[in-house]
Amino acid sequence: MAVQSVACEQKLDQECINCLRGLAIDMVSQAKSGHPGMPLGMAPAAHVLFSRVMRFSPTHADWPARDRFVLSNGHGCALVYSMLHLCGYRISMDELKNFRQLGSITPGHPENVDTEGIEVTTGPLGQGLSNAVGMAIAQAQTAATYNRPGHQIVDGTIFVFCGDGCLQEGITSEAASLAGHLQLKDLVVVYDDNRITIDGSTALSFSEDVPARFRAYGWHTLTVNSGDSDLEAIEAALREAKRSDRPTLISLKTTIGYGSPVADTAAAHGAPLKDDQLRATKQSLGLNPDEFFAVPERVREFYKRVHDCGDALAAEWRASFGAYGQAFPAEAAQFRRIFDHRRLAEGWDAKMPKYTPDMAAEATRSVGGKVLNAIAEYLPEMVGGSADLTPSNKTQLKCSFDFASGKEAGRYIRFGVREHAMFAIGNGISAYGMIPYTATFLNFLTYGWGAVRLAALSKFRHIFYMTHDSIGLGEDGPTHQPIEVLPLIRATPNLGLFRPADGAETVGAFRAFLPRADRPVVLCLSRQNLPQLEGSSEEGVAKGAYILRQTCQGEPDVVLIASGSEVSLAVDSAKELEQSSISVRVVSCPSSDLFLEQPLAYRRAVLTERAPVISVEAASVAGWAAMSHFQIGMRSFGKSAKAKDLLSHFGFTPENVVAQTKKFLTDLQTRASELDLPPRGVLGVLQCLRE
Amino acid sequence: MAVQSVACEQKLDQECINCLRGLAIDMVSQAKSGHPGMPLGMAPAAHVLFSRVMRFSPTHADWPARDRFVLSNGHGCALVYSMLHLCGYRISMDELKNFRQLGSITPGHPENVDTEGIEVTTGPLGQGLSNAVGMAIAQAQTAATYNRPGHQIVDGTIFVFCGDGCLQEGITSEAASLAGHLQLKDLVVVYDDNRITIDGSTALSFSEDVPARFRAYGWHTLTVNSGDSDLEAIEAALREAKRSDRPTLISLKTTIGYGSPVADTAAAHGAPLKDDQLRATKQSLGLNPDEFFAVPERVREFYKRVHDCGDALAAEWRASFGAYGQAFPAEAAQFRRIFDHRRLAEGWDAKMPKYTPDMAAEATRSVGGKVLNAIAEYLPEMVGGSADLTPSNKTQLKCSFDFASGKEAGRYIRFGVREHAMFAIGNGISAYGMIPYTATFLNFLTYGWGAVRLAALSKFRHIFYMTHDSIGLGEDGPTHQPIEVLPLIRATPNLGLFRPADGAETVGAFRAFLPRADRPVVLCLSRQNLPQLEGSSEEGVAKGAYILRQTCQGEPDVVLIASGSEVSLAVDSAKELEQSSISVRVVSCPSSDLFLEQPLAYRRAVLTERAPVISVEAASVAGWAAMSHFQIGMRSFGKSAKAKDLLSHFGFTPENVVAQTKKFLTDLQTRASELDLPPRGVLGVLQCLRE
Ligand SMILES: [Ca+2]
Ligand SMILES: [Ca+2]
Repeated sequence: MAVQSVACEQKLDQECINCLRGLAIDMVSQAKSGHPGMPLGMAPAAHVLFSRVMRFSPTHADWPARDRFVLSNGHGCALVYSMLHLCGYRISMDELKNFRQLGSITPGHPENVDTEGIEVTTGPLGQGLSNAVGMAIAQAQTAATYNRPGHQIVDGTIFVFCGDGCLQEGITSEAASLAGHLQLKDLVVVYDDNRITIDGSTALSFSEDVPARFRAYGWHTLTVNSGDSDLEAIEAALREAKRSDRPTLISLKTTIGYGSPVADTAAAHGAPLKDDQLRATKQSLGLNPDEFFAVPERVREFYKRVHDCGDALAAEWRASFGAYGQAFPAEAAQFRRIFDHRRLAEGWDAKMPKYTPDMAAEATRSVGGKVLNAIAEYLPEMVGGSADLTPSNKTQLKCSFDFASGKEAGRYIRFGVREHAMFAIGNGISAYGMIPYTATFLNFLTYGWGAVRLAALSKFRHIFYMTHDSIGLGEDGPTHQPIEVLPLIRATPNLGLFRPADGAETVGAFRAFLPRADRPVVLCLSRQNLPQLEGSSEEGVAKGAYILRQTCQGEPDVVLIASGSEVSLAVDSAKELEQSSISVRVVSCPSSDLFLEQPLAYRRAVLTERAPVISVEAASVAGWAAMSHFQIGMRSFGKSAKAKDLLSHFGFTPENVVAQTKKFLTDLQTRASELDLPPRGVLGVLQCLRE
Repeated sequence: MAVQSVACEQKLDQECINCLRGLAIDMVSQAKSGHPGMPLGMAPAAHVLFSRVMRFSPTHADWPARDRFVLSNGHGCALVYSMLHLCGYRISMDELKNFRQLGSITPGHPENVDTEGIEVTTGPLGQGLSNAVGMAIAQAQTAATYNRPGHQIVDGTIFVFCGDGCLQEGITSEAASLAGHLQLKDLVVVYDDNRITIDGSTALSFSEDVPARFRAYGWHTLTVNSGDSDLEAIEAALREAKRSDRPTLISLKTTIGYGSPVADTAAAHGAPLKDDQLRATKQSLGLNPDEFFAVPERVREFYKRVHDCGDALAAEWRASFGAYGQAFPAEAAQFRRIFDHRRLAEGWDAKMPKYTPDMAAEATRSVGGKVLNAIAEYLPEMVGGSADLTPSNKTQLKCSFDFASGKEAGRYIRFGVREHAMFAIGNGISAYGMIPYTATFLNFLTYGWGAVRLAALSKFRHIFYMTHDSIGLGEDGPTHQPIEVLPLIRATPNLGLFRPADGAETVGAFRAFLPRADRPVVLCLSRQNLPQLEGSSEEGVAKGAYILRQTCQGEPDVVLIASGSEVSLAVDSAKELEQSSISVRVVSCPSSDLFLEQPLAYRRAVLTERAPVISVEAASVAGWAAMSHFQIGMRSFGKSAKAKDLLSHFGFTPENVVAQTKKFLTDLQTRASELDLPPRGVLGVLQCLRE
């Protein structure tokens, strides 16, 4: 706790706080855009937290045992950028001046990818707090796994700032309820209780008793009434929270826009102060209104001491980690592999199951469960769970047990029916340095899309493990059957999609995506049994799409491209079409995004330019026009019925695929003569086969 | 309260309850699929509610002043179908036997569209309870608007059953917090507190104090410990809840799978009882194990009396509504227009603003606000609000005031930062018979997608009013900038999309979608100012896409198709291209789904088969291949910067569009000679122009 020793006198503290306030409002004014209210109100808490309580080292920003800070109300980031700058993270004064400008590392809401010291991307409300729950789980799991008597190498705390908006979002309720259940003691949330939201007073829409609600979840709660001024009370609350054996919520009463003419009103929230307001604010804070981006020397020196102190702490830790390595070399090596090198263990895929065409049909959700278990032994950093669908998702880990209060080394998480928080918690676990998998039915991916898209934006390795991936799930009906979800995933940048056709492809999917640390994937698995296919290939999966079957030489008459459960349908249809002397190539496309990353020559070799391409997928046809000339798919919601009846009703039978294919080929000839073009001229070149 | 007068003796009650149980488990067993546990546990509560407390009339199922019932834990629907059957709704015994089969009106989760007596589609957890909050708002708003001293024509209660899963979902927390804030007295939630979820005991993930949490929201809470047996206690709790001046949660302790060998375990939840278990259950309930789908005559008679009693209540109400109509003819006529005829008021669009090309540029969010206000005067059934973005969405209604406790006639709802609940509440308001609009930034549509897709599936008229619809929102950055959202909307069945280009198109959008009562729409509006375009047309909007500009005669050299803010960019680009003697047609496409509904001849007339088509839209290009040969759009997430810089950075400038168009046309020639095809043969016929 050497940070405590940084000598502080009250006046200097106040100077630091007002310097932070001045920087933040100058940033917003310079950008002519942003949120001055929160930094003016929360600067005291930020100052106390960073200078007296939190353990971090700007020189070693990713020191694994650091305390972590999450700004859940991300719009207040001018405060954090200013703080990170003063503490010596790689954020220059020019970057502060470039707040919210193109190419800066100080974007309008904090983004983890480009900005050192930003643990997670926030802005969409509630995400940060839920990420922090994930970090606190990862922290507890890591501590329980690696700490040894006399060697407390992991004991960080996760600190969060959040506002009213975060607490109104449902994701926060989910995450907080789970955090209370799990008694995550390393989680401290500071609630900026300023009684104002964008629309005006919280009296308009938010009159609940927040601390009582959190106590109902099992949290410890504290209140600091003088959050604008009483640094000792803030510090005392933070310290008590850190000591608590439960997650703690500190309700900090503050004044939004403190010191400004619009203090305590919604006007302070989300628009720059006008020039006269800016002057008046600085005057009321004792700052020179003619100076901009001013940092008094004493303030700079103060934070330099905070910086040095943090570096000393990190060095101290490195030394104690060295001693740990002497005593526990295997554990230390594993710890470094995971948290320093972020590499998979050698031979992680050694026990993968092998699938051959002679083996019995099996649901890919079942294959997935076997694969998870085969690799989990080698990858202790893999932790995950299901949103109360464990028996259906088949995600339980045999090599471990449930993560629970008092059993924190457990790697299986019972998330409850809390999809959105589950995904955000997974993001937090990933941010901490581990590999999360989070499971539910594919259709409920969109219950937590806010977190899924942030995983993609944040480049988190995170396995969204989705079963029951089509109308093939049967009787649960259209409320449970995904239609629009696959197009959504495909339209999202940096989000992988794998929908394997059988056992071999499922294994191949894991081999393809797991080594990539820079993006999340959605793994789509079937509820129903799927046959092991002749020609399916792990290597093929790695290229996203490949020729699974073709009996004729050279160019076929038609290409059927399919994914997942529809690949076997395409194969069966091909066999029938061949009876009518139509030669067919079947392309399996477990991962369209990976296929589109392949060289043009490969893409052209798979989806020949010479033949019509027909896609078959039991999901919305939207998006397939770039990769096929005709689509067999869903154009409505599903229905409740037996899977077999549904597949037949919606045309996923060899009979229908054969009939549609023949009709398409005939229509093509007709249309070609109408338009006076060769048939391939009617079809044109697929967009995915262009330069 | 004539239902009370239905004479009941205890034994008959028990016979009714066990008959319901028997029907429900027979349904599940016959279907070999479904959820027996909840019906076995909740049959007593359902029996008491339907036979003693709730006011409904199966003969007039949509009697506007009825009490409403919502099964939020929709998987328990075998219980409700059985009850509706016994009470005389149009659900035959054959339909019970066809549970979960293709074409039945008894699907695996309740769907409002085909099944009488089902108010809302449920299954995805938390939705029903949140719909009920919307119904309770609509109920309170209607009561405050239409009731007069001595004429209490609206005084229904919304009853909800929910389970642990619903209470774990964040959407429920959002909705419940708002319900407490608004003190919705007509809302009664019965929580099936059976301590079991799919994964096992609630001790695995859900240990919060639920009643304490609801009290923190401002709810009244009650507990019934003997929910399996004590009908008087259940009735007393329901009656007390009905009288309460706040929303009420009744924690009803029940036994999942009551009477079965798997009672009180997760095994009872979601799989049919095995044959021997089915027999044993019936035996323990005093039912004949050799009988299936048995309804004793006494039971049938009992529920016939419930049915008749409900019809009498409805008739009584019709009479009192007649008296109301004598005293308040205008109000009565309006009430009937809205709730009986579901027609818009004559002349509802009389005060729509008019936009002409000479008028100043204006953000379509600002136009939208004016339109909302222009029509709200004529349509008192239009109620809505924003998720704490009122000043940005510009959705406030000048003709009304905030809906609040004690001011329930208000039509503007301050939803707080609760997008998912807001959308589900809107669905509930729509189910009640009114026209909701719910507003946030377009990117946060996916925070509540679970409810959006249910609006589409349920055929609810619901205006999802989304502003800040592209990277054009600027500095807030990629966390706030929609990329994948437009493809998602387009991939969703029965969900309208309107992205108007200017004032005239925004007005036209409302004229196009508002009269359609059978589907929701997402209205996408710009943050930034957009010029009023020469050639933009309200009539064009009604066809989804239309030719906005073409200066040459006949076929152009190229078609630029764009939506929303990119239409003016297409026009500017066209002007520049014409300088290089390239003739251009500009097609404005505010609603691709509406366009795809047009006759083929119209589609071919707009997107000629003779010219290459290039799309320009500041969103993911995914999906556009069906409607264009080349796409200018987004292939990554956005960035934080000034809107102007972003649009330039991502290529949304006339310079770039011109350059890309020229390059595309040149490449086309080259490729055509390579492939030995005419240029149009390289492009092929767009899929949207095929039969
Ligand atoms: Ca606030
Ligand atoms: Ca339960």
